[in-house]
Amino acid sequence: MSCSYLPTFQDPQVIGAGPAGLMSAFALARAGINVQIVDKHSKKVAAGQADGVQPRTTEVFKSYRLSDRLLKEGTQLHVAAFYNCSKSGGIELTDRVPDVTATDTNFPFEVTLHQGAIEDIFLDNMRDMGVEVSRPIIPTSLEVTEALVDDFDAYPVRLNTETKDERRTEIVYAKYVLGADGARSWVRKSMGVVDLIPDTDFPDVRNKCAIHSNNGSCMIIPREDNKIRLYIQLDGKDVIDASGRVDKSKAGPEMILDVACKTLHPFTIKTPESYDWWTIYVIGQRVAERYTVHNRVFIAGDACHTHLPKSGRSRHERGPAASMYDSYNLAWKLVHVLKGIAHPTLLQMYEFERQQYAQDLIDFDKKFSKLFSGKPYSELNLDGVSHVEFLKAFQMFGGFTSGLGVQYTDSMIIDSKHQAQNIFIGRGLPPRPLLRAADCRPIDLHNLLVSDACFKLLVFTGDTHDPAQMARVQEFAKQFSASGSFFAEFSSPDSMHKVFDIVPISSEKKETIMYNALPRILWSHWSKVLVDDIDMRGVTGIRPYGYVAAIAPLDGVSHITSYFTTFMKVC
Amino acid sequence: MSCSYLPTFQDPQVIGAGPAGLMSAFALARAGINVQIVDKHSKKVAAGQADGVQPRTTEVFKSYRLSDRLLKEGTQLHVAAFYNCSKSGGIELTDRVPDVTATDTNFPFEVTLHQGAIEDIFLDNMRDMGVEVSRPIIPTSLEVTEALVDDFDAYPVRLNTETKDERRTEIVYAKYVLGADGARSWVRKSMGVVDLIPDTDFPDVRNKCAIHSNNGSCMIIPREDNKIRLYIQLDGKDVIDASGRVDKSKAGPEMILDVACKTLHPFTIKTPESYDWWTIYVIGQRVAERYTVHNRVFIAGDACHTHLPKSGRSRHERGPAASMYDSYNLAWKLVHVLKGIAHPTLLQMYEFERQQYAQDLIDFDKKFSKLFSGKPYSELNLDGVSHVEFLKAFQMFGGFTSGLGVQYTDSMIIDSKHQAQNIFIGRGLPPRPLLRAADCRPIDLHNLLVSDACFKLLVFTGDTHDPAQMARVQEFAKQFSASGSFFAEFSSPDSMHKVFDIVPISSEKKETIMYNALPRILWSHWSKVLVDDIDMRGVTGIRPYGYVAAIAPLDGVSHITSYFTTFMKVC
Repeated sequence: MSCSYLPTFQDPQVIGAGPAGLMSAFALARAGINVQIVDKHSKKVAAGQADGVQPRTTEVFKSYRLSDRLLKEGTQLHVAAFYNCSKSGGIELTDRVPDVTATDTNFPFEVTLHQGAIEDIFLDNMRDMGVEVSRPIIPTSLEVTEALVDDFDAYPVRLNTETKDERRTEIVYAKYVLGADGARSWVRKSMGVVDLIPDTDFPDVRNKCAIHSNNGSCMIIPREDNKIRLYIQLDGKDVIDASGRVDKSKAGPEMILDVACKTLHPFTIKTPESYDWWTIYVIGQRVAERYTVHNRVFIAGDACHTHLPKSGRSRHERGPAASMYDSYNLAWKLVHVLKGIAHPTLLQMYEFERQQYAQDLIDFDKKFSKLFSGKPYSELNLDGVSHVEFLKAFQMFGGFTSGLGVQYTDSMIIDSKHQAQNIFIGRGLPPRPLLRAADCRPIDLHNLLVSDACFKLLVFTGDTHDPAQMARVQEFAKQFSASGSFFAEFSSPDSMHKVFDIVPISSEKKETIMYNALPRILWSHWSKVLVDDIDMRGVTGIRPYGYVAAIAPLDGVSHITSYFTTFMKVC
Repeated sequence: MSCSYLPTFQDPQVIGAGPAGLMSAFALARAGINVQIVDKHSKKVAAGQADGVQPRTTEVFKSYRLSDRLLKEGTQLHVAAFYNCSKSGGIELTDRVPDVTATDTNFPFEVTLHQGAIEDIFLDNMRDMGVEVSRPIIPTSLEVTEALVDDFDAYPVRLNTETKDERRTEIVYAKYVLGADGARSWVRKSMGVVDLIPDTDFPDVRNKCAIHSNNGSCMIIPREDNKIRLYIQLDGKDVIDASGRVDKSKAGPEMILDVACKTLHPFTIKTPESYDWWTIYVIGQRVAERYTVHNRVFIAGDACHTHLPKSGRSRHERGPAASMYDSYNLAWKLVHVLKGIAHPTLLQMYEFERQQYAQDLIDFDKKFSKLFSGKPYSELNLDGVSHVEFLKAFQMFGGFTSGLGVQYTDSMIIDSKHQAQNIFIGRGLPPRPLLRAADCRPIDLHNLLVSDACFKLLVFTGDTHDPAQMARVQEFAKQFSASGSFFAEFSSPDSMHKVFDIVPISSEKKETIMYNALPRILWSHWSKVLVDDIDMRGVTGIRPYGYVAAIAPLDGVSHITSYFTTFMKVC
């Protein structure tokens, strides 16, 4: 075994190139951070594995301009169909309901796409920025020098790695390390999963289906390229060996399909010539107690939480939406700290915000999984799970499963002192159709909430046709410019450290508004002035990326300034 | 001068690689026809020239899956602003109205993009199919052997060409030749045109503007990359030399901008560091008397009609929408004849359909141009053009300028015997949001009207939840299959000569419909069965590409069959 005696120094180091790790590396690279990412596997995963991209995650993809490809390659699930026992034996259609109950999104559906394709979206876009995954590289140990953690310029994390093939060891000193390299979980249940192109007479084969029959439960998830995925529950003892590991020799795709067909009776699925992918796995649910070590090492994704794949966030032993979201939440904080704009204390907010969400997710999964695997209600089984009960759970958690229901509580970076109608602090801002004032082009508010690590300051000017209101807007602009000139300096498109993106939204009529009559500091380009028909006044600060952080009235420039002073160095 | 003694044989030969020629070559290549295209210029045009893509043309781009790129690169015009004389001297905003008045389109706006970029869309997509423009190749003579024009297998057109550089001549024998190589026009008026990035206080600089002042008239057309185009009318005698040609030494972009600024007073445009493109040209309006020679040689685009660029179809001496539309109209007819599916008489319909449209277009342009260049109405000039009069003309021709108002009259291929509500025979089918039955995915009807040279047979099944109606649908399917098996054979996705694309549209509720309960001959794939909430019954035939050709009731299979018998060889 050889050893390189020249350690490398890395600002942020990402370990693990699954969806969580790739989202981190991509988000950091896009913000101009020099990031390195390693993975222990020689090759990336091909078929199967993760799927189920929820509306909020699709919105995140859009904010990076990655959603076109996701939507082109993925399959959309709009409807969930429920089948239950029929009186004549077998199953029959009980109900079809929207798969996603939330309506405050431009993507009111789930997208299924295999993990390899999702990873490729990140990989291809990272490659364009010169970032590639180094593999296979295995982390062997990690050490944080506690004396150095408060020194901004130090590299307090020491990471030892080993290459699998060349048996070379290497030492990396990093400012920050993000561990996104999966997790092991307790054995609790086992699931059989198979992907295939179905030849079937089952009419809901292109809808997400929950099927409860006296012969068992089964779930169908439509996928890209005319494929579907079947999930069935297996009796653990049949497929798990003495050491607690799955013994694949005890089962195969034929067995899984056979169980599914019994559930589907009187409908049939013909045995296909080949199976696209299949697996049997054991799953557990847990949340990591700590998300960080001294805010220098962070864990994200599976390293934090694993849960049941049938919650609509159906991913093999992982939660891809939650995993990518961990990374997304951490990325802008790391960017601001590494660029010297924010105090390192900002990083404490990562664990604060993500741990509670992970716990909620697990709780939901447990509940839903119990209902799903319970015996169906019937005249002979009055204690069984009724469709009404199951549907209620499905819909009650609709907002949650859509990824749109996340609510961050008050903290250093969430300030709910001032409120405004229809804007919820700590939540994502819903989409809203607006017009650009200069050319009346329809634009959705979400098109402006790009993930560029900038805070978005939405300045609702009110009806600027009214001279008194225009005077208020001019006074706001004056105070805003005067605030140590910090807003002006850090909102310039030419600034090296642009932190603010200012978006004025007027409620003046589109027939009369003159976009260039607004104070010049409020718009950096003609395309930035918007028109809405709701008369709102005040400033709404949107964090990178997309969550409402604080609100202030037009005469509350000092409130906005003090909000940023708590964690930014520039104030 | 050398001469190649080996003539080449070409099925269709396209002359001229402007928008009309490229649209032809692209449409033919996409349909699998071995096409050749030549152009006399050594290089393609760079900046300036054509712009103004109307809604119907954007729909055509969409039907070829080219609209994403057009919309990404182009600028959208949603509003037309009108400025007129103000009492204090100078001009003031009179009105802002939608630039496109038609609402029955998914693209209710005009797109501006320079000619080179539009051509690149075709060129890049043709290159993927192995077709490139041969240039510079100059056609020197063209001859049609009349004795051969009725022989399908003959190559009756002889084309002599010459290369500019090598001075090599070549002979091409072609089955069909399409001339899309522009035209000369009579000198009537002269226009000054300049493209620039404006530094201005004029508030409607991002809207299409018609400005009438006592100092003259001016039009502003916003363009891609923050540019605008200014049109001003010049006094012909100032810039035209004795030979009737423009003398560019007599004027320049500074002069054009200077005239525009006088019109814009009290607003100003600063003199830019450079001009993107400018020209002065003389224009005329005419329609060719014949569009074809023996239906073996066709002319399209500028070769048929030239008109004023300010009609909303603002292209230098040409009409790009009308030009591309000529090609689009001809392409599917040529494809069907060359593939041996249709009788050559089908080609007679090209001249029949396009000549009337071209005449209407010119008539409109003349009228509009007169109103535009007229002195504005004022207390001192009571005979002047009033805003109300100008706006009325602008809006009256709204449907026409959008490209959506084209109406083909009854002919061999337009059969208005049967009618249906909200479907207009001889016109484009408006967009309509529908659902796919199998997965409830929203889809617009236009997404199915792809330009693949196939007739679309929309089978409105009515409410198939009603057993009596389902029985009618089954009887239809039976008769349909029995029609000499011709519909079945030529609608198979595997057929070499697929002519029909069958799209069943049911009005059954999405909650109950079973897509696979419809007769199998009506759907070739699960994605083809649609749901609409309007209860319609019958068959609507849509021609390639997009125009309603004929309608029949569900028990009128014989009517549909006889429609196709008039021009198809397969019946």
